[in-house]
Amino acid sequence: MVFMPSLRLLAVSLVALLEPVSAIWPAPQSFTKGNSSLYLHPKINVTYNGEPVRRPTSSSSSSSFFLSSSNNNVGGSVGPGYKGLFTKTPAQQQLIYKEDYSATSLSSKEIVHAGVSRALGSIFSRNIVPWMLQPRGKLSEFEPDLYKGQNWIKSLEIDQTAKDAKTSFKPALAAEVSEAYSLTLSVEGDVKLTADSYIGVLHGLETFTQLFYQHSTGTSWYTPYAPVEIKDEPKYPHRGILLDVARTFMPVKNILRTIDGMATSKLNRLHVHVTDSQSWPLQIISMPEVAEMGAYHSSQTYSPADIDLIQKYGALRGVQVYFEIDMPGHIGSLSLSHPDLIVAYDYWPYQWYCVEPPCGAFKLNDTKVDDFLGKLWDDLLPRVAPYSAYFHTGGDELNRNDSMLDDGIKSNDTEVLRPLLQRFVDKQHERIRKEGLTPLTWEEIPIEWNINLGKDVVVQTWLGQSSVKNLTSRGHKVIDSNYNFWYLDCGRGQWLNFDNADYTAFSPFLDWCNPYKSWRHVYSYDPAANLTEEEAKLVLGGELAVWAESIDPIALDTIIWPRASAAGEVLWSGRIDPATGQNRTQLDAAPRLSELRERLVARGVQSSSVYMTWCTQDPTGKSCEYPRV
Amino acid sequence: MVFMPSLRLLAVSLVALLEPVSAIWPAPQSFTKGNSSLYLHPKINVTYNGEPVRRPTSSSSSSSFFLSSSNNNVGGSVGPGYKGLFTKTPAQQQLIYKEDYSATSLSSKEIVHAGVSRALGSIFSRNIVPWMLQPRGKLSEFEPDLYKGQNWIKSLEIDQTAKDAKTSFKPALAAEVSEAYSLTLSVEGDVKLTADSYIGVLHGLETFTQLFYQHSTGTSWYTPYAPVEIKDEPKYPHRGILLDVARTFMPVKNILRTIDGMATSKLNRLHVHVTDSQSWPLQIISMPEVAEMGAYHSSQTYSPADIDLIQKYGALRGVQVYFEIDMPGHIGSLSLSHPDLIVAYDYWPYQWYCVEPPCGAFKLNDTKVDDFLGKLWDDLLPRVAPYSAYFHTGGDELNRNDSMLDDGIKSNDTEVLRPLLQRFVDKQHERIRKEGLTPLTWEEIPIEWNINLGKDVVVQTWLGQSSVKNLTSRGHKVIDSNYNFWYLDCGRGQWLNFDNADYTAFSPFLDWCNPYKSWRHVYSYDPAANLTEEEAKLVLGGELAVWAESIDPIALDTIIWPRASAAGEVLWSGRIDPATGQNRTQLDAAPRLSELRERLVARGVQSSSVYMTWCTQDPTGKSCEYPRV
Repeated sequence: MVFMPSLRLLAVSLVALLEPVSAIWPAPQSFTKGNSSLYLHPKINVTYNGEPVRRPTSSSSSSSFFLSSSNNNVGGSVGPGYKGLFTKTPAQQQLIYKEDYSATSLSSKEIVHAGVSRALGSIFSRNIVPWMLQPRGKLSEFEPDLYKGQNWIKSLEIDQTAKDAKTSFKPALAAEVSEAYSLTLSVEGDVKLTADSYIGVLHGLETFTQLFYQHSTGTSWYTPYAPVEIKDEPKYPHRGILLDVARTFMPVKNILRTIDGMATSKLNRLHVHVTDSQSWPLQIISMPEVAEMGAYHSSQTYSPADIDLIQKYGALRGVQVYFEIDMPGHIGSLSLSHPDLIVAYDYWPYQWYCVEPPCGAFKLNDTKVDDFLGKLWDDLLPRVAPYSAYFHTGGDELNRNDSMLDDGIKSNDTEVLRPLLQRFVDKQHERIRKEGLTPLTWEEIPIEWNINLGKDVVVQTWLGQSSVKNLTSRGHKVIDSNYNFWYLDCGRGQWLNFDNADYTAFSPFLDWCNPYKSWRHVYSYDPAANLTEEEAKLVLGGELAVWAESIDPIALDTIIWPRASAAGEVLWSGRIDPATGQNRTQLDAAPRLSELRERLVARGVQSSSVYMTWCTQDPTGKSCEYPRV
Repeated sequence: MVFMPSLRLLAVSLVALLEPVSAIWPAPQSFTKGNSSLYLHPKINVTYNGEPVRRPTSSSSSSSFFLSSSNNNVGGSVGPGYKGLFTKTPAQQQLIYKEDYSATSLSSKEIVHAGVSRALGSIFSRNIVPWMLQPRGKLSEFEPDLYKGQNWIKSLEIDQTAKDAKTSFKPALAAEVSEAYSLTLSVEGDVKLTADSYIGVLHGLETFTQLFYQHSTGTSWYTPYAPVEIKDEPKYPHRGILLDVARTFMPVKNILRTIDGMATSKLNRLHVHVTDSQSWPLQIISMPEVAEMGAYHSSQTYSPADIDLIQKYGALRGVQVYFEIDMPGHIGSLSLSHPDLIVAYDYWPYQWYCVEPPCGAFKLNDTKVDDFLGKLWDDLLPRVAPYSAYFHTGGDELNRNDSMLDDGIKSNDTEVLRPLLQRFVDKQHERIRKEGLTPLTWEEIPIEWNINLGKDVVVQTWLGQSSVKNLTSRGHKVIDSNYNFWYLDCGRGQWLNFDNADYTAFSPFLDWCNPYKSWRHVYSYDPAANLTEEEAKLVLGGELAVWAESIDPIALDTIIWPRASAAGEVLWSGRIDPATGQNRTQLDAAPRLSELRERLVARGVQSSSVYMTWCTQDPTGKSCEYPRV
């Protein structure tokens, strides 16, 4: 079910541009709406492929995944029949998440039923009264009259047109599973959601929730946009966030909340950078010493149950969680438990050996390293493979000088090191493929080291558009994390300490990738710019990077959101608006992103603001447009 | 009780520099410590001027101010006898804050008793287990042995050497009340805290709490630093934060939490910028229409009870809360209720009339404005005066073109406008003085408009060190908010929308005061640099500015902290370390600021991190020092 907007829809979209845009982030590929109001009935009848979706009850153990990682009810009272779902304490919820839940029970049906319950929860219990999105004091003009002519939405019919493969809960390799959906809502109150896959259904349900607001009385929930017709699918199959949990540990609950935000923004890949030279929080069952010595603290590790929980939580929300163990550089923390495998750990001055302390790289010519990695893969890969299509082996910023300290090499000559690195990469990638996973690697491996990669390997770039061009022109599939646009940690200042002697030279203590990437700047980036059509096809998508030298769980949400949502629209809807053929404008984006931001907050994701209330209270965005004089 | 560090103390401080610095932010003027451990007894006997400080009980209504605005117990179990204090829900706490509590009952005794209870709560219930501040896995080497030779602190003797004036809860005008204190802790476990005023006692109690950690068992609380001798007083009497609650509304609880963070950092002035052109959240009893029309939403206003609560909450913590009603510019929101008083509200293109939409200024030659302001002052000033020494009348960024639209003026000629503005300023300042308040004004009034000010008027600068020099050389008392260092909202990108035609010119959409001011940059600023001794005496202190075009309650804590604490040390301890005669270094500051940050978080203040755990786990800060190669 792949489609292009029809000419008719194109024409309607052009008309829609003339009126204040509202609702739905990221923008659907085609979207028409009317101006009739419908209320959502708390006892709405939902079917999935003709069968009724069972009523959620709080006592049901399978209600576990109905719940979101937080439960921030800003919307007043909750509709009858739904209250039980949303009254659990966070501790109870956490307990429920931890229940043993075998992978095979994650059927399409279970996933869709859970998605329906979350969607209804988002509408009835975690919704917004949109006074901040309407002109001051004019909310009543936006809200339908509560006491006359109420029309109800009484049914939601979900049809999945293709049967999911048995392993469909294992998120698909890029583009192998359709994420498309269509959603119609008639003025009579009939809703139809159609999709090929359960992932398409989940996206459609998310779109459905974004059509609704809570009435200011707190007792009704309505959409003012009927009739609605939406046909939608993503431009890029890989829409992700890279989360560094090694430099700063991120607790499980923060990762789950990040997944909540991703599902709301139709982002579908969470790349967990789970080890680095600073710490190794990942528990390895067969080698407990690795995390015992390598984690910052015993409270800052991920157990196998944690990993399983995070991946399942993602799978249920259409988010593939995959992991990176960065190597052969960026692995110094392993030296704390296995010093014989590592060179250059905590060597000073660090600049000779790496880009930031404490350095540390694998010995590239030592069978003990092979043995360790064999044991690591045997332990880890079978655990993560059921829920991932990818495994990332890192490969960035390897410093040649490290091998000067390696008794088995004692050289920093590329000609000496390259064959050793080729053998190292081949070996790990081969092992990863055996588990049914596709290897991912940073761009330095093919570009700087000229390592040959298998055709299946996906290359993640960070050094900018020339790297994207370079790699795609050579036939590599690419995930784009251009640091000039999509590094969310940048522009917040140096994290190194400077002695007084260095004050003048380094003031005002800017970091290497200054300035800060505001959502407007994030939104302005087009991964396909300056590429040929053939090259552009090889760009699978992009990832926003959240490196954690200066970010911790407390600031995490405000760092990620709404900026990741801004990139999410570029990756889902495309930088170009098909209705105009031009880049999407901030004027169109800001009001919609403001609405999404309010929804994120209502769902417990602590997003920063888009701009001040003076601006959000103008649905056209023009009150805060820069006027040329 | 004003003192300079003795030569002996200076010598000891020099020795102390050679070992890892620990505890206490901002740095005391003199501080010696040993390495004996003492446990704090949960039934510690506390006296104030010889009388026992009563045991807090949860049922006592006067326990209201014992509680902090949040209660984030990260430290495990709570000592016997204290549990009742810290088990109230936030809603219950809020209720307690709201109790009618007449001003006269804020005696020194009540304030000190409340301060003692908060201090014990910070130690027993909102403390840190400092594993993140010690080398990895080495916490046990820092912690005292729990089972042998426990020495107990059993008494805390507080002596206030001077009697507070009857209105001592009304925070003092700059330097009129001593904030000095001395604190000694003997190896036998006797603690003595001496100060002239209750404010000095509060500072001493805060210092006292920072000597203690929670044991990792969760059942004991200790200091490893006995014996301790501290003599301390602030370098600058005015150490503040400017909080803009008009561009974005900040709920009362967020303001109270900001006060919590300020008290922890020994900051003592909260300047609330409570109205602006975007909104007017301040309820005026005699003119309810002003906030009814001027607030963004009925939920986004401050009632008289809210204002009273905020000021009392501050007064109890040694923080003077004072207000700014910015005029004659920056007052457009008043146009929504009183359009006849205002010109240029929401005029476009805004650049002709102000620096950001929606503009709006008072008519400068209209008796209706006088009448309105008379009524406003009669209503507001008696309410805020009991807890403030200052009232701020704004005065920044008045645009001459506004008066072109004023039927009573129709001119943008400075010679025409200046006498009108002089009369306007004189009139308002006179009214403010009548209430026993001292007027504050932005620097544009004396510098750009050349308005004559009373000798009492304090001028707030923001345009940099040349303004400080200019004003102090002319004899003005100054509060320094240099935007190049202390504007905390800067460097996070434009908040205006740019059309596609402006993309290239404005990408990457930097704001006017880019870059972001990292804590290292904030910390590097010395308000007294380049001033003569006479000029420097006129600098009362400084304020960190939190303008809210792009900040909202969710991001607020992470924006303010730990950066305001960094400036807090400059303002309390001085930029220069008396022990070395040099600027304080990041190497010394980072570990201590990291510890303060953990304490802020434990107390419910959602501070950003100082740097990653890899760095905080080195108490010398050297693991993350930039090495010159």
